[in-house]
Amino acid sequence: MTTTRSVLAAQATDYPRWFQDVIAKAELADNGPVRGTMVVRPYGYGIWELLQEAMNRKIKATGAENAYFPLLIPESYLQREAEHVEGFSPELAVVTHAGGKQLEEPAVIRPTSETMIGEYMGKWIQSYRDLPLLLNQWANAVRWELRPRLFLRTTEFLWQEGHTAHATFDDARAFATKILYDVYRDVMVNVLAIPVVVGRKTRRERFAGAINTMTLEAMTGDGKALQMGTAHELGQNFARAFDIDYLSSNGQRELAWTTSWGSTTRMVGGVIMVHGDDDGLRVPPAVAPVQVVVLAIKDETVAAARRIADDLEAAGLRVTVDDRTDQPFGRRAVNWELKGIPVRIELGPRDLAANAATVVRRLRSTKTAVNLADLTSTAVAAMDSDQAHLLEQATARQTARITTVSTVDDAVEAAAAGWASLPYDAVGETGEDRLATAGITVRCLQRPDGTLPASEDEDDLTAFVARSY
Amino acid sequence: MTTTRSVLAAQATDYPRWFQDVIAKAELADNGPVRGTMVVRPYGYGIWELLQEAMNRKIKATGAENAYFPLLIPESYLQREAEHVEGFSPELAVVTHAGGKQLEEPAVIRPTSETMIGEYMGKWIQSYRDLPLLLNQWANAVRWELRPRLFLRTTEFLWQEGHTAHATFDDARAFATKILYDVYRDVMVNVLAIPVVVGRKTRRERFAGAINTMTLEAMTGDGKALQMGTAHELGQNFARAFDIDYLSSNGQRELAWTTSWGSTTRMVGGVIMVHGDDDGLRVPPAVAPVQVVVLAIKDETVAAARRIADDLEAAGLRVTVDDRTDQPFGRRAVNWELKGIPVRIELGPRDLAANAATVVRRLRSTKTAVNLADLTSTAVAAMDSDQAHLLEQATARQTARITTVSTVDDAVEAAAAGWASLPYDAVGETGEDRLATAGITVRCLQRPDGTLPASEDEDDLTAFVARSY
Repeated sequence: MTTTRSVLAAQATDYPRWFQDVIAKAELADNGPVRGTMVVRPYGYGIWELLQEAMNRKIKATGAENAYFPLLIPESYLQREAEHVEGFSPELAVVTHAGGKQLEEPAVIRPTSETMIGEYMGKWIQSYRDLPLLLNQWANAVRWELRPRLFLRTTEFLWQEGHTAHATFDDARAFATKILYDVYRDVMVNVLAIPVVVGRKTRRERFAGAINTMTLEAMTGDGKALQMGTAHELGQNFARAFDIDYLSSNGQRELAWTTSWGSTTRMVGGVIMVHGDDDGLRVPPAVAPVQVVVLAIKDETVAAARRIADDLEAAGLRVTVDDRTDQPFGRRAVNWELKGIPVRIELGPRDLAANAATVVRRLRSTKTAVNLADLTSTAVAAMDSDQAHLLEQATARQTARITTVSTVDDAVEAAAAGWASLPYDAVGETGEDRLATAGITVRCLQRPDGTLPASEDEDDLTAFVARSY
Repeated sequence: MTTTRSVLAAQATDYPRWFQDVIAKAELADNGPVRGTMVVRPYGYGIWELLQEAMNRKIKATGAENAYFPLLIPESYLQREAEHVEGFSPELAVVTHAGGKQLEEPAVIRPTSETMIGEYMGKWIQSYRDLPLLLNQWANAVRWELRPRLFLRTTEFLWQEGHTAHATFDDARAFATKILYDVYRDVMVNVLAIPVVVGRKTRRERFAGAINTMTLEAMTGDGKALQMGTAHELGQNFARAFDIDYLSSNGQRELAWTTSWGSTTRMVGGVIMVHGDDDGLRVPPAVAPVQVVVLAIKDETVAAARRIADDLEAAGLRVTVDDRTDQPFGRRAVNWELKGIPVRIELGPRDLAANAATVVRRLRSTKTAVNLADLTSTAVAAMDSDQAHLLEQATARQTARITTVSTVDDAVEAAAAGWASLPYDAVGETGEDRLATAGITVRCLQRPDGTLPASEDEDDLTAFVARSY
């Protein structure tokens, strides 16, 4: 198999460098000129588009509707919710001048839109008939990051942010939980092939202004945690700050209960970190902008390569033909390996004479001769099979690298090589302090049966702790 | 037919007020808190999403790829192209502080991305093999507007902006022209049912930094012009400013030729203004978030309404059931008229007993009894037929309200009631000044056969002049 190890740092040697190298060599993204910003190149954006399409479909299936709220939020809006402004103030980008004049009130670029959307929920909701109000937007957001990293933590990122209002605490909790499992976990597991541990954040890790934050955590190739998405119960905090109230069916004014939930371009970083190997990216077929590349080795096989590509496309696959026969074969093969295209069909004159082609399965690291007549069925079958394979591999690694321990000290030791799970009773607030000094956080809490705790004060909770991106 | 005239200003009496009323009553959008910004509500966003999907498909068919470039542009980038910065400076929103500190270099929120994308084209393009480079992004942009108006001219707007680089002047011109006709005109005419006059802008109306701007102009219900989209030839201006050069096949360094082209949420304003009537919005079926509403008049018809809706959905239509039987029928009917849903099926107990329903065609203003067995075929047939009907109506109005004149004075008079067309030779630069004092502009220039002039200096050009939004 062609190896690309020379062009990338090895994962085992320098994982962060490997991550940067893959992003550059697979042409996923570039650094933007303003510190911490990102240019998402067509190949990286192609992955995001497919992911977004799947997520959007699932979000709509919950009954939520897409809308669009302004980028610029009056500074005073944020100040209406005390914890929220305290949490976000250090990260704000502020517009002070516009149209050649100083603004009377500075506007911040949205770091998140609870305040903006809260203001309009307050206007639109009058009676219980208007509830639940289920909104979502696909947008950019800006948070000034101290340690930016492409895809994982960029000053500007792309995301969907959902915001809902409900009549009761129970309705709000049920909806946030539905988003967590039926939308986020479903897409992460079944589309991105990324297993996630779903749990509740501790008080310290909560979203600023929430009464509860629920999270989905993935394990990266180097055994750290990556928060893939969160759903927040906001209680009545934002309803109080933005007058989101309604007339109940028995004529009482009641405050609504709101939620918010988000998932970002960071998920593309998750795909890279969970599935990538020393040869580059490995893209799950469901989000692969190119699922099959047909590589014509010589000029005389270009026409046949195009016919094969037509057949593959007719079978519903996303296909590209590499007809750059004036460039070295090796360099072209390495390029497609780096990009992690699931199936590469190599077609040379000898293959063609034998009525066959070489099928390279990037996600399996196999290389076999396949009869031309069987190419389409082989490629189609590879998609489901390789999608499942990536999920199995990632799940096996996650299982193998979570160590069960019983003390914070053992957790710190275990977290050098993966995650640790331990009784939350053995952690507590002082334990979180101790973990923090070692650069480790409680990623989430689960009940013994793996379900979500109704509160962090329940007995017998398990804490998952890890270093994280 | 239920009339909604009481809730909207009449078009003939106060067209701008009618426009605002429709936007509010049909729940399309709201004003944002920062002056000139807009909240796009779910119904308005639903129209945008369908429009965007159609446009995106057409853009991809040209070979252009989607990507995403940062929102924040260093101020110095804009200054590299003299005309560009002069044109956009008065409209910029500037971020001076971020992360609690003053920025070393202020960043502007993109008013458009020629400079940002030019910088990366310069990095990515090395040889003739890298050309053409065809990029597009779906994004928000901010231009501080003096006289903002919802959808038509908002401080923040959503759009796609395409940016391409080519080896030759001819390639660039051919591509910009292809976008104009095969993407923009096609979507406007065949999806939005909006006829457009396609032509070349005069020097005075060009995009800042372009050597040529081409435009598509629609006629609004009050006979004004609305610029629906533009494509620019940028010559080598941005290539020079951002070092976009390439090694030609014979080893020479050559500057590339670039284009840019954009279409925005303003198009939703076009749908409102071109098709709306005194009863509210009329949405072309192709972009109608709800194509058919099945209105159950009484509780006992709700179940049947749901069955009908299922059949309609199975036939591929976008359908909603109105089962709010606790609310007055009249108010519900008015609500759907305001929203311009193409087909409304009203189902009362007597209808049901007679095995029939009342079909109200909003875009035709007809109301007929239809046998239940024929409902689906009736609704399906209405879609194509009503789509065509809207285009015919708009085309007929446009034709009727363009007056051919021969002098600028006559054009000024004619433009009080519609557009005027006259020989461009009769206008010239002084004529444009004279028109400007009357609040009229040359919208575009065409050859006698309706095609695009290669230059504004060609003989026998026709100028279309009008008041505009």
